[in-house]
Amino acid sequence: MAKSPDTEHPVKSYGYGATDTSGTFSPLAFSRRVTGDKDVRFKVLYCGICHSDLHFAKNEWGVTTYPVVPGHEIVGTVTEVGSKVEKFKVGDTVGVGCLVGSCRSCQSCSNDLEQYCPKMILTYSFPYFDGTITYGGYSDHMVSDEHFVLRWPENLPLDAGAPLLCAGITTYSPLRHYGLDKPGTKLGVVGLGGLGHVAVKMAKAFGAEVTVFSTSPAKKQEALEGLKADHFIVSKDLEQMQAVAGTFDGVIDTVSANHPIIVFLNVLKTDGKLVLVGVPEKPHELPAFPLIMGRKIVGGSNIGGLKETQEMLDFSAKHGITADVEVVPIDYVNTAMERLLKSDVRYRFVIDVANSLKAPLN
Amino acid sequence: MAKSPDTEHPVKSYGYGATDTSGTFSPLAFSRRVTGDKDVRFKVLYCGICHSDLHFAKNEWGVTTYPVVPGHEIVGTVTEVGSKVEKFKVGDTVGVGCLVGSCRSCQSCSNDLEQYCPKMILTYSFPYFDGTITYGGYSDHMVSDEHFVLRWPENLPLDAGAPLLCAGITTYSPLRHYGLDKPGTKLGVVGLGGLGHVAVKMAKAFGAEVTVFSTSPAKKQEALEGLKADHFIVSKDLEQMQAVAGTFDGVIDTVSANHPIIVFLNVLKTDGKLVLVGVPEKPHELPAFPLIMGRKIVGGSNIGGLKETQEMLDFSAKHGITADVEVVPIDYVNTAMERLLKSDVRYRFVIDVANSLKAPLN
Repeated sequence: MAKSPDTEHPVKSYGYGATDTSGTFSPLAFSRRVTGDKDVRFKVLYCGICHSDLHFAKNEWGVTTYPVVPGHEIVGTVTEVGSKVEKFKVGDTVGVGCLVGSCRSCQSCSNDLEQYCPKMILTYSFPYFDGTITYGGYSDHMVSDEHFVLRWPENLPLDAGAPLLCAGITTYSPLRHYGLDKPGTKLGVVGLGGLGHVAVKMAKAFGAEVTVFSTSPAKKQEALEGLKADHFIVSKDLEQMQAVAGTFDGVIDTVSANHPIIVFLNVLKTDGKLVLVGVPEKPHELPAFPLIMGRKIVGGSNIGGLKETQEMLDFSAKHGITADVEVVPIDYVNTAMERLLKSDVRYRFVIDVANSLKAPLN
Repeated sequence: MAKSPDTEHPVKSYGYGATDTSGTFSPLAFSRRVTGDKDVRFKVLYCGICHSDLHFAKNEWGVTTYPVVPGHEIVGTVTEVGSKVEKFKVGDTVGVGCLVGSCRSCQSCSNDLEQYCPKMILTYSFPYFDGTITYGGYSDHMVSDEHFVLRWPENLPLDAGAPLLCAGITTYSPLRHYGLDKPGTKLGVVGLGGLGHVAVKMAKAFGAEVTVFSTSPAKKQEALEGLKADHFIVSKDLEQMQAVAGTFDGVIDTVSANHPIIVFLNVLKTDGKLVLVGVPEKPHELPAFPLIMGRKIVGGSNIGGLKETQEMLDFSAKHGITADVEVVPIDYVNTAMERLLKSDVRYRFVIDVANSLKAPLN
């Protein structure tokens, strides 16, 4: 008979989790494995709240195993290392993002693209090698193979830097992969949420000329003054859109709500690239004609590999890039989720785990 | 007042054209310009029938100017050259494809990508620089700026080679551009019509391992024995499709009927490429998730530039690539169009213009 989450491993752990599709979070006791030879154990200091956390909590993608303890934007301090750990020592500041495992031998893994390994293991609610389920960063501590642990750059803030482990790499990686990281690149960013606002900062740091596309004219000031975007266009305004037709090298579309993409194909130059990082519920409508007439592409991109995630953190530290965050205590998580659903956050909640998570009474 | 087609230019010409949306072709007299300094005039020998010809004849894309004389897979013999023509002399065998003009100065033109020039001029039913309408190869002769005229390789058949000027370059160019031209590339070709059957031949000549995807099991023998494809898969057969999930470097989709593309995204490897060269009436359904989870792209490609078209002809001559054709007299064109609509041709009709087109009586 399978053991229960709080007894299946020797090391006690606790945090906030969801036990059913209501999406309500409450305190939860569970357990974690002992520190293996290659494992790093660390106390969680901060953990960002990603919209995926809510999707998983409610089992909206149909793959959740309960109880689920979300959190994949995790920063902490190393408390123990296995005998064969080479990169970390006790006291180091570290991060863990969306992945805690992969096969380490397939072509994707060999190319430092663990995020495309068919056997990749997500940081929470995913079967680990030993058959138990992974638990994320809404918790007192984490344990992870050192390959999936990031060095935290010295001058990168722990709270505002945490969301880079998901939102940062999700936008950095496609800019690099699709060649949209060159100074002077004319880049569009669709949507100004958790992903979009970081995309603007990354692109500006690469030297791109950045235009924010939004359906909401109210975001103009924020885009131009707050995020230092170069231009702002209301994507529903046909006249504004027509005025920039055929002028963009690339567009990063971060929107997860259903929306038309043809308007963004139209603003691309020949050989322009529309990169999707948001996952709307419904399929996009993709007419072939505009793709064909300008040899344009629509591509996707999923977070990044570990090597590139480290590179992104170092790049962010160097260029002073962080997410704009609202730091909250862990017992605020249900309210935070409600506000997230209303896009009532600029732009990312980060849980101050160490200062707000209380150990269970027994 | 605008002159009529048969008097607007000094040089009489005649052919087959359509005068209304019925899509019916009949003999037609019109006129062509005198041979300019950079112009090449040639007697039409053969002209392929492309499905676009029927779309234009019926004004199904809403851009037709009547009368329309179609034909953009044209092979002929030079009869006159302008004083500044450098590449051709009387008696040369030449070809003209889909383009007869472009601005020659934009970025696309500078990069030998005339097919993406915003001012490109199609070979028929398109306004030329002088404001008159272009007429295609269903006619006694053509006149074109030499930049848009191709040298015909010595050992390339004139009849079976003619369709390469459209179907050949439409499939050759994306294989090259999207890096699907390497030996060992695992390539899928969707649809086995005018474009698809040439795509198979091109890909085989590049050394690819080619799989034909078709909804019609009846095409298996033809694909494997006739066209020497390596594999054949019925794309409606979920079991067959699942067995090859994640194994293709690229897929060229030549189908112009509405059809699902997600099944072809699923067979791609990480970083795999689905290239659309067919234009269905309705937009495709494109879910973001499979693009994102494998960093896959959907791209388009439109014919090719003049430099690449010459390269393609030379490549075809070297590798013995031609279209499979049924050569017909020009008064067969209406029957040919009826059969084309029923996909009753393997795989391309080519009009034997020189031996079947009669001069008008007056």
